[in-house]
Amino acid sequence: MDTSRTSHPGRVGTVERSESEVIASFATWASGTGPLYRRLADGIRKAVEGGALLPGQRLPAERQLAGVLRISRTTVVAAYEALRDVGLIESRRGSGTRITAHARARRTHTDGRVPGGMGASIYQHLIDGPEDLISLARSSEGAVPELVTAFRDLAGSDLAAAFDEPGYHPGGLPELREAIAAHLTGTGLPTTADQVLVTTGAHQALVLVAELYLRPGGTALAESPSWPCCLDVFRARGTGIVTVPIDEEGPDAVALAAALAARRPDLIYLMPTFHNPTGVLTSAARRRRIGELAARHEVPILEDNAYTGSLHLGESPRPLAAYAPRGAEVLSAGSLAKVVWAGLRTGWVRGPVEIIERLARRKALADLGSPVIDQMLAARLLPELPRIQAARVPVREQRLHHIEKLLRTRLPSWRWRRPDGGGGLWIELPGVDATEFSHVALRHGVEVVPGSMTDLTGAHDRFMRLAFTFGEDVLDSLVDRLARAWAEIGRRAPAATDRERVIV
Amino acid sequence: MDTSRTSHPGRVGTVERSESEVIASFATWASGTGPLYRRLADGIRKAVEGGALLPGQRLPAERQLAGVLRISRTTVVAAYEALRDVGLIESRRGSGTRITAHARARRTHTDGRVPGGMGASIYQHLIDGPEDLISLARSSEGAVPELVTAFRDLAGSDLAAAFDEPGYHPGGLPELREAIAAHLTGTGLPTTADQVLVTTGAHQALVLVAELYLRPGGTALAESPSWPCCLDVFRARGTGIVTVPIDEEGPDAVALAAALAARRPDLIYLMPTFHNPTGVLTSAARRRRIGELAARHEVPILEDNAYTGSLHLGESPRPLAAYAPRGAEVLSAGSLAKVVWAGLRTGWVRGPVEIIERLARRKALADLGSPVIDQMLAARLLPELPRIQAARVPVREQRLHHIEKLLRTRLPSWRWRRPDGGGGLWIELPGVDATEFSHVALRHGVEVVPGSMTDLTGAHDRFMRLAFTFGEDVLDSLVDRLARAWAEIGRRAPAATDRERVIV
Repeated sequence: MDTSRTSHPGRVGTVERSESEVIASFATWASGTGPLYRRLADGIRKAVEGGALLPGQRLPAERQLAGVLRISRTTVVAAYEALRDVGLIESRRGSGTRITAHARARRTHTDGRVPGGMGASIYQHLIDGPEDLISLARSSEGAVPELVTAFRDLAGSDLAAAFDEPGYHPGGLPELREAIAAHLTGTGLPTTADQVLVTTGAHQALVLVAELYLRPGGTALAESPSWPCCLDVFRARGTGIVTVPIDEEGPDAVALAAALAARRPDLIYLMPTFHNPTGVLTSAARRRRIGELAARHEVPILEDNAYTGSLHLGESPRPLAAYAPRGAEVLSAGSLAKVVWAGLRTGWVRGPVEIIERLARRKALADLGSPVIDQMLAARLLPELPRIQAARVPVREQRLHHIEKLLRTRLPSWRWRRPDGGGGLWIELPGVDATEFSHVALRHGVEVVPGSMTDLTGAHDRFMRLAFTFGEDVLDSLVDRLARAWAEIGRRAPAATDRERVIV
Repeated sequence: MDTSRTSHPGRVGTVERSESEVIASFATWASGTGPLYRRLADGIRKAVEGGALLPGQRLPAERQLAGVLRISRTTVVAAYEALRDVGLIESRRGSGTRITAHARARRTHTDGRVPGGMGASIYQHLIDGPEDLISLARSSEGAVPELVTAFRDLAGSDLAAAFDEPGYHPGGLPELREAIAAHLTGTGLPTTADQVLVTTGAHQALVLVAELYLRPGGTALAESPSWPCCLDVFRARGTGIVTVPIDEEGPDAVALAAALAARRPDLIYLMPTFHNPTGVLTSAARRRRIGELAARHEVPILEDNAYTGSLHLGESPRPLAAYAPRGAEVLSAGSLAKVVWAGLRTGWVRGPVEIIERLARRKALADLGSPVIDQMLAARLLPELPRIQAARVPVREQRLHHIEKLLRTRLPSWRWRRPDGGGGLWIELPGVDATEFSHVALRHGVEVVPGSMTDLTGAHDRFMRLAFTFGEDVLDSLVDRLARAWAEIGRRAPAATDRERVIV
């Protein structure tokens, strides 16, 4: 969706962006090297060249930008000065500082970002690569050794025969659809192969479902907080988002009932196993209740179980679809990213046969089908998945214990609830806005996902997501950098035990 | 884009579809087994279940449908009767035959097809698989043996180290971006790695470019004829399409100049090497002229070179981007599908750095990046590409000669121009509408792409695309089926030499 208005039909859009969107467009500025003013100037220049900042766009006042980025005003002054020297910005009394009219702009209708989206800086980091940064925006690791074994097994098979077909499978390689169906059946959700569509990661499953169910001006219902990149997928359709809070058992059923009654949304988007960023596992009772509510209001559910098996500190309920009454329309997205390797980019969505057929049409339109070799490997690995997951649990538990110990020692004022699963801690910062902290942390080499990106209501502005899916040496370095950033932010934490706290 | 209007806000759309859209929704009905009336009834039932035909939709009158499908009226009567029996359709005097109101419909806003799209039946065949059909909708083969070698080489390398990274590369695996840049530089188009975005096939490159440049109500300019699935990508954005004819040197430059002056489109979409479906190679002089025109009118070009190297009967000019003057904005899409294997799903788009960066953002939003293993294989194969292409030319020439000989013997009234490259013949049927012939051919086990799907103006209604990228045994069987279908169509061809003919 391109929702930009253009001042001259057929010319470049000149929508004025909000201050937070402007700052988000060069949010990764601090991760480079060299003097701070030069890094800031480079970040703004790149945002202009990439089309994120258009000619005529107003920049924040120097004092204001210095406050938000937690840098000295002198640094901002020097950066603006450097940009004025090369003619990229101009400052006028009364109208502030703006991108100059002749700054290079290509004639595309969008810079590729989702208007109003919150995930832009996370996406940008995936594109730019990590540099020296420890990025907490993703919680994925290298591949499990079983992938190497599967690859070598496949290499020893009759590859010439296996590759002797045209190679287009928009619905998915038949053997993989079968393997996914068998796997889901094994988790307590009886599934046939024609109920499964293979996607390029669970992310693409979200995209295809959004294309089918969402429309400009419509509404999606999500949890608060939720994951910014997923919400961006819905926003990209021009769809509004309403949220319900979650507690330790999952999405609040009373709030959900009220939201469904007040404004029937087009889709309910949930992460029951496990919720990102909080790590909450939705209970069986809550799953049943949510399924009933959705069926009564005739609203389809998309359950995103991309984190299933990523950590497993207890018994997991079946997928939400297994608890929903007849008549409820539940789509279940999953992925091998967190259990085998994200680089396989193998995900799926499971649902009613006729919906899967429609989704396959969108998949064909999107890319004519995912690559075949990864699907062959995935089909070989799926029967082993329970064993692969079980083998990884001790490693991940160890990492969780390690970071918890480090944090208790180095950052004793921070608070979190131990996650039921997933790859991150949901940290509450005592008395500090997490967005402000994220700017400081970036300069210390850590990319933090602040709560404000996960929740537009402001209820989680003091929270941030801390991924712990790293080796112990990286975790040591991570907590050390965070502790130094925390020292720099220079505030004393209030006594956390005295305050009422939001748990998730 | 969902352009359907809904009669009740928030309820299922009830847009009345045109007769040709209705028939297209069950276009593959004849490819099953069993009596014809049962196949037709099944085809219509599936179209209803899949959401392609909505409650209240009017079906063609029996006589009309029999005429279009070239079957007896009795067959249609029997099929409608069977559907009435199960309550799926109802017939009323005065309002004809319609899908019943209570026919199952899911609450999605679209059936996954592109409104007004022409490629639906081609996509559907990719989803359903070939069955016993010889599909001429695609011209791809099994993998080259070099892929097996590359796979086994990779299996022998240090895979554990290669897979020890998070696996997200929205821009493409760095080593593959380098390899594509080196390859393009070798074809006479100097390219750096940051000018390259890796995509899931050239098809996804089209999708991402369309997302960046096209908007509802805008215009794309394409050749007439063009490829229906590519045009559907543009239509899916809500964009209108204007066309210019092509001749033996490529797109008509005079018509292009007039079209650019009359209505500046948002994007020019061309297939210079080689054009699908005609097999025309755009000459160097024409490339230069087109580049000049696009630069003068400031309209970007997307050149789709997915068929480069697929057949090679002479020297090829450099990519169009190499002839364009400074200031012209040319994006060049390519793929390994036709030269290595479509199952790799490895494509790319090359363009200005700042546009590639924007496209990478759309790629991240679409699927967070393509699978890594296929990219590793592609990076190994790209340096060998000229050799792989050259090794395949004799095989393909042999197939071309073989089908030409068969056609001259069995179907002497058919006419075609020998293609410069690509995988198909563009056949003119003497005195017969190719859409009508396609219905007959389908019953004889051949899926034909009729000219009407490639050109909305009607100028190519007597043409059809005949892929020849099959082994000789399949080609024998193919021409045999076509000859039997041609006999059934029961018309005598007019003396072709007496008539003025459109060459392409």
